[in-house]
Formats: sequence, structure tokens, C-alpha cells
Amino acid sequence: MDILSENNRLAERNRGYFEGKQVLTLNMVSSPGSGKTTILEKTIRQLISAHKIFVIEGDQQTTRDAERIEKSGAPAIQINTGSGCHLDAKMIHNALKKMEVENDAILFIENVGNLVCPAMFDLGEQKRVVVISVTEGDDKPMKYPYMFQSSNLCIINKTDLLPYVDFSVESAIKYARELNPNLEFILMSAKTGDGMQGWYDWLEKQR
Amino acid sequence: MDILSENNRLAERNRGYFEGKQVLTLNMVSSPGSGKTTILEKTIRQLISAHKIFVIEGDQQTTRDAERIEKSGAPAIQINTGSGCHLDAKMIHNALKKMEVENDAILFIENVGNLVCPAMFDLGEQKRVVVISVTEGDDKPMKYPYMFQSSNLCIINKTDLLPYVDFSVESAIKYARELNPNLEFILMSAKTGDGMQGWYDWLEKQR
Repeated sequence: MDILSENNRLAERNRGYFEGKQVLTLNMVSSPGSGKTTILEKTIRQLISAHKIFVIEGDQQTTRDAERIEKSGAPAIQINTGSGCHLDAKMIHNALKKMEVENDAILFIENVGNLVCPAMFDLGEQKRVVVISVTEGDDKPMKYPYMFQSSNLCIINKTDLLPYVDFSVESAIKYARELNPNLEFILMSAKTGDGMQGWYDWLEKQR
Repeated sequence: MDILSENNRLAERNRGYFEGKQVLTLNMVSSPGSGKTTILEKTIRQLISAHKIFVIEGDQQTTRDAERIEKSGAPAIQINTGSGCHLDAKMIHNALKKMEVENDAILFIENVGNLVCPAMFDLGEQKRVVVISVTEGDDKPMKYPYMFQSSNLCIINKTDLLPYVDFSVESAIKYARELNPNLEFILMSAKTGDGMQGWYDWLEKQR
């Protein structure tokens, strides 16, 4: 509880900082391997000519994701959490001292792949985006309710695999809406590009 | 640290209990949606005529998995962790008071879907089995090293989807072996049944 209230205090400071700089900050959360990094790579390539984009990457180990992001054209900083299971507001605060995010930019924070713990830790983001892939099963919202309750947008990714898996898009949306009636949904395949335009439009609407 | 040392103490008690009753206990860990429950359903249907099998199911919410398991023929008890991100030794100890596991049985513990936190919590199991699916990306071992370091067997599941995803089995095994040279591997598709015999043989060998 003490940890959470200390985190919430620092998250508000981050939120104020982003507001002051008119930075749109999105906290991307998901299971491991749902495709967050691929979504960000494609998004950066598409939007970097028109927008300033920065990325904070969270993983237990390795700088692989930050390297992938930088190759797609946006500055990225990697936070390694070691045995830790989530990013927290203080890690973001410290990262912002190392990477100068420009005014009016979009800042993507890719959280540690974990549908549980990151739900409890506000980072000061404007919107939380939960990514699930159609290979994970359509009952995930019911089984990990906190994440779906605390998110603003749910991306259902890897739709190119729908013919090969037992996943009902309707059931997944129904279960998630029961937990969070305001949750928005975008279906996409970051691999094929299908549905990505809906995501770009959603991003524009947040600015 | 205090939480972990208290957990380790209780885990040893569970281990003694299983040893006393000659129960083979396996702690099944993975990301959400890697197919643990489907693997258990198929395994129970295959082995229940020759073995006594019991299951402890962990999820944040719902009793869906315990219901699926019971339909396949084994007694199951569901633990809901609420906002918690892992099972711990005390939850297992308490579950064993509610469900009488017979001597010489196999007990499967299906942990909360999370590649991070369950790595830190010994439940008193004899072997830890980490399940990954080929849809998750072959770099998962490097990014979540603690789980792969602490596991005995790695099941690579959903091999029926290999033609449709970018996943190198060789790379995944190589990365995981760098972390844990003793880790064993079984490739399977629980959906099609392909490779399941290797898993049944592995189970027999543990008894």
C-alpha cells in the first residue's frame, strides 16, 4: 500500500510534466509476445515524418527492444527491471532525465510483458493501451480483470492468425466490456498492416 | 526478502508432504494463453485410467479453468489470487487441506499466467515446467531469464502454428540453454496432439 501510494504521487508528477510539455504519453501493456514492439516499429515508420516520437522500453533483461525501436527511427531508452515485474513511476521519472522528450511529442512506454502487475502501477500516462493477441484465448479479460478495467484501449493483434486458432473476437470484446464498458477496441495485424489505420486515427484523436 | 524466506520455508514443508505421499508435483508456469490448460486437459484424458491425477488451478479471477479440468476427469481446486500475480507456498498448503491428494498421485499446479513473478516463488514442487507458445517470439527466454533459469522442462507449444509465425525453434532453445544448460525441451501441439507422447514419456520418467 505504501509502495502504491508513493507510486501514485510520482505518477501525478509525471502527468504534470507531460501536460506541461503537451506530450501524449501511452502506456502499452500486454502478455509477453503479444506484439507490442512490432506495433511500435510499424507505427514509428508510419508517423515519424509528421510527429516527434520517443519510446521508453521496459524488460527484465536485454536491450533488444530499444535497439529494434531505434532502427525504426525514434530515440529509445531501455529500462531493465531485473527481477521486477513492472515499470513504476519513478523509473519513468528517471528515464525522462536521461532522454529529453521534446514538446508536443508522442511518448510510447512499452511496459514489461505481464498482464498482472503493471495494472497496479500508474506511470502518469494519458492513456493505457492493453494489447492481446488472438493466440492467447478469448477469456483473457475475465481472467486478468484489473488490466482490462484500468485500460482505455484494447488492441486485438495478430488477426492474420484468426483462421488457425479458436478465438472469438465477439466473446473477447463482450467479456472485456462487462469489466469496462468504456473500453475501446481496435483489431489489427501489425505483421500484415491490416487495421493499422484505425490505430493511427485513434492516436490523432488523442492529441 | 522476508516474504520470500517465509515462502521458502513453507515450500519445504509442501515438498516434504509430497515426498511423504510419493506425489509427483509439477508447477506449470507460462505467459497468459500459452495453452497450459489445454495441455492438462489432454494429459488427463490420456493418463487418468492409469494414474491418479489432481490439479490446483491459479488465476486472478474465475473458476473456468478448474471447470475445464474437472470435465476432463480429474479433481481440481481453483485458487483466485485477486490482485495477486502468482501462487505461493501457503496457498498450496491451504489448498491441500481442502483437496485430499491420494498417495502416488500426480499433482499438476497451473500457476497464474505470468512469466515474471511466479519464478520467485517455490511451491515445493518436484519439477517446474515452463510453457511457451510459438506465437510469443523466440527471444522470450532472454527477456524473462529468471523463469527459464528456474525451470526443469520447457514445453514449446502450438507447433501447428509454426508455418504462420516468425519463430525459430533453434534460436529459442539456444537462448534458453545459455541461461540454463540443463533445461530439457519438448515440442508439441496440444491442439493436434503432435508431440504429446514425448511429454507422457517425460512424466513417466519423473515417477
